[in-house]
Amino acid sequence: MSDSRLLAWAYLSQVSLGPCAPLAELVAAVGPEDAAHAVREADLPEVLRTRTAARRHVDTAAQDLERLHRLGGRLLTPDDEDWPAWKLLAFGGIDTRRDREASAPLALWIVGSGSLSDLTERAVGVVGTRAASGYGEHVTTRFVEDLSGVGWTTVSGAAYGIDGVAHRSALAAGASTVAVLACGVDRAYPAGHARLLREIAEHGLVVSEYPMGTTPARHRFLARNRLVAGLSDAVLVVEAGVRSGARNTAAWAARLGRPVLAVPGPVTSAASVGCHRMIRDGEAQLVARAADVIEAAGPITVGERESGPARRLDALSVIEAQVYEALPATGAVGVRELSESSGQPLSAVRGALPALEMEGLVAQDDTGWFRVASPGRDEGNGHLTT
Amino acid sequence: MSDSRLLAWAYLSQVSLGPCAPLAELVAAVGPEDAAHAVREADLPEVLRTRTAARRHVDTAAQDLERLHRLGGRLLTPDDEDWPAWKLLAFGGIDTRRDREASAPLALWIVGSGSLSDLTERAVGVVGTRAASGYGEHVTTRFVEDLSGVGWTTVSGAAYGIDGVAHRSALAAGASTVAVLACGVDRAYPAGHARLLREIAEHGLVVSEYPMGTTPARHRFLARNRLVAGLSDAVLVVEAGVRSGARNTAAWAARLGRPVLAVPGPVTSAASVGCHRMIRDGEAQLVARAADVIEAAGPITVGERESGPARRLDALSVIEAQVYEALPATGAVGVRELSESSGQPLSAVRGALPALEMEGLVAQDDTGWFRVASPGRDEGNGHLTT
Repeated sequence: MSDSRLLAWAYLSQVSLGPCAPLAELVAAVGPEDAAHAVREADLPEVLRTRTAARRHVDTAAQDLERLHRLGGRLLTPDDEDWPAWKLLAFGGIDTRRDREASAPLALWIVGSGSLSDLTERAVGVVGTRAASGYGEHVTTRFVEDLSGVGWTTVSGAAYGIDGVAHRSALAAGASTVAVLACGVDRAYPAGHARLLREIAEHGLVVSEYPMGTTPARHRFLARNRLVAGLSDAVLVVEAGVRSGARNTAAWAARLGRPVLAVPGPVTSAASVGCHRMIRDGEAQLVARAADVIEAAGPITVGERESGPARRLDALSVIEAQVYEALPATGAVGVRELSESSGQPLSAVRGALPALEMEGLVAQDDTGWFRVASPGRDEGNGHLTT
Repeated sequence: MSDSRLLAWAYLSQVSLGPCAPLAELVAAVGPEDAAHAVREADLPEVLRTRTAARRHVDTAAQDLERLHRLGGRLLTPDDEDWPAWKLLAFGGIDTRRDREASAPLALWIVGSGSLSDLTERAVGVVGTRAASGYGEHVTTRFVEDLSGVGWTTVSGAAYGIDGVAHRSALAAGASTVAVLACGVDRAYPAGHARLLREIAEHGLVVSEYPMGTTPARHRFLARNRLVAGLSDAVLVVEAGVRSGARNTAAWAARLGRPVLAVPGPVTSAASVGCHRMIRDGEAQLVARAADVIEAAGPITVGERESGPARRLDALSVIEAQVYEALPATGAVGVRELSESSGQPLSAVRGALPALEMEGLVAQDDTGWFRVASPGRDEGNGHLTT
């Protein structure tokens, strides 16, 4: 891309300072340079003249790009091959004449070396309350580990609580993670996550539609939630209080036609009230394990899963089949042993087991994982079983 | 009722030994005495002759009734004013030509002094795994206490685990409870619940469609589950393993057109797997508290609850209003204090609070219950709230 074109994009992003459907349409029609010229001259339709009036004089594009490059970052635009166009297509289904802020981002400021398009090819937004419980943290780790093992990217907002645990679990699993910020990528927000954000930038991507130096603000968190949903195939709410912001992310997912998934928890826990309410009100599907997420959001399994008896062994993936074969005919083994005996990395084994469990082929108890010979009763309750 | 008529009912119950739609139809058509005569003489349509062949010689009616009376019991029949005809009407919706065992019971052997019809006027079946967790026991107690406080009867199967806790919690709350057995009411099954069954008989009702001396058997547990559902306005599954018998009770409730409710729990708990699966598969509605059960199953609130803002204060019940008024304008108080200050019994206060909480008028924290001044945010997650 030419320097002048990139500078035009940076200028437009700085002026717009967040989503603006009419501006995106103008750029799509005349290109960024002519659009930037029109904005500078206020040679615009009424709606855009008003929207850009306050900031069209802000021309820090060159400095912004310079600062971004010093962080090892880049400005990703719809011109770019790496632009996640396919994912952001969902915004096309929203009537932006009624809600101008509900549009795809104009451009994305990114720190990190991976491809956003590749990383979000199979991605789950993992969000939840800042006031996570020990249970919520444990469950987040479990879901993210299992999904990481089968190649899913974890997208979240780098907040305290569930968000932070989600990113950390993905990093620990050696998997991809994308942090979407409500401020410039040069800002560490929250401050306590400065080191985490550096690690995400090193091994994944830190992304924002806001230009360098932008400070976080209430409406930006809401716009950011829209991008967490927009870059994900599904949004998983692990824990949420009754009015948690995670429900805003979930609402965005629903608006974009993406599955909203919620993890149940103890009814005695305030941190699960929002999840329970979403499930109860039909706003979210209940998911109890990674396999449920894959079933709800995975491109391969959707609509194809047999509802009857377990899928046959020969329909398993290569990794699943190897992990299954590595299980002894009798007795249970641990994940580490399975990794050794199957020759599959730990993360792959962790990913395959939930899928095998979902198919009713394996099960788990205190001693480890074991083969399930045939479907039988696993416990009664004095009512006996059918 | 004449002795000969009662003896005929007892004989028919003993011969039929469980549900039998064609026999019930015959009795409805010609009365119990002529029906008993026809069975004795095998003067019957083919289907009934076959069905009664093995046991039509068993004529222990007089001894059975004598033993029942010695236990302080009675044989309840459709002749009786106390017959829960209204409740059992739901069986009329089932095509018993295809499933002869899916019919209303012929008669009920009952120990206890209360009226079955009165007790089941507002009743919830509370069932679950025998292998209940501490969480499951705690939650069962909470639901049953709250529902007992507003006059609901707890119906269950007297099994170990959730069933037993449900009965005990109702007894502890001084509320009504009905145990439906899969054996004769003279049998204590499970044996470890002999004392519990005596207490239920003393303060509630022990009920069985099986005559004196009948031993429990697999198919009788399934038939019994149908009666737990049949005598309840809704079935609440608190904990269930993946193939728990509680799901059989739930399936009966669904067949009878009654709400099936399930309590979520930690996804790490095997005892909640069945509940989560039922919710996920749309077989059960998620309920997190007694107010949800009342909303789903209560005759008054069904279809009438406003979905928008909280119901106005003047729409509260007298007890709810008194409890609400008794709450201080600021600060929290305990249930016992509220009972004193409102002049309402403890059970009534415990029942009113969930309803008030559902309306968004009160809330609870570690220090007790308090008034909610106006709807506000209760917690954020770094995404800020909408």
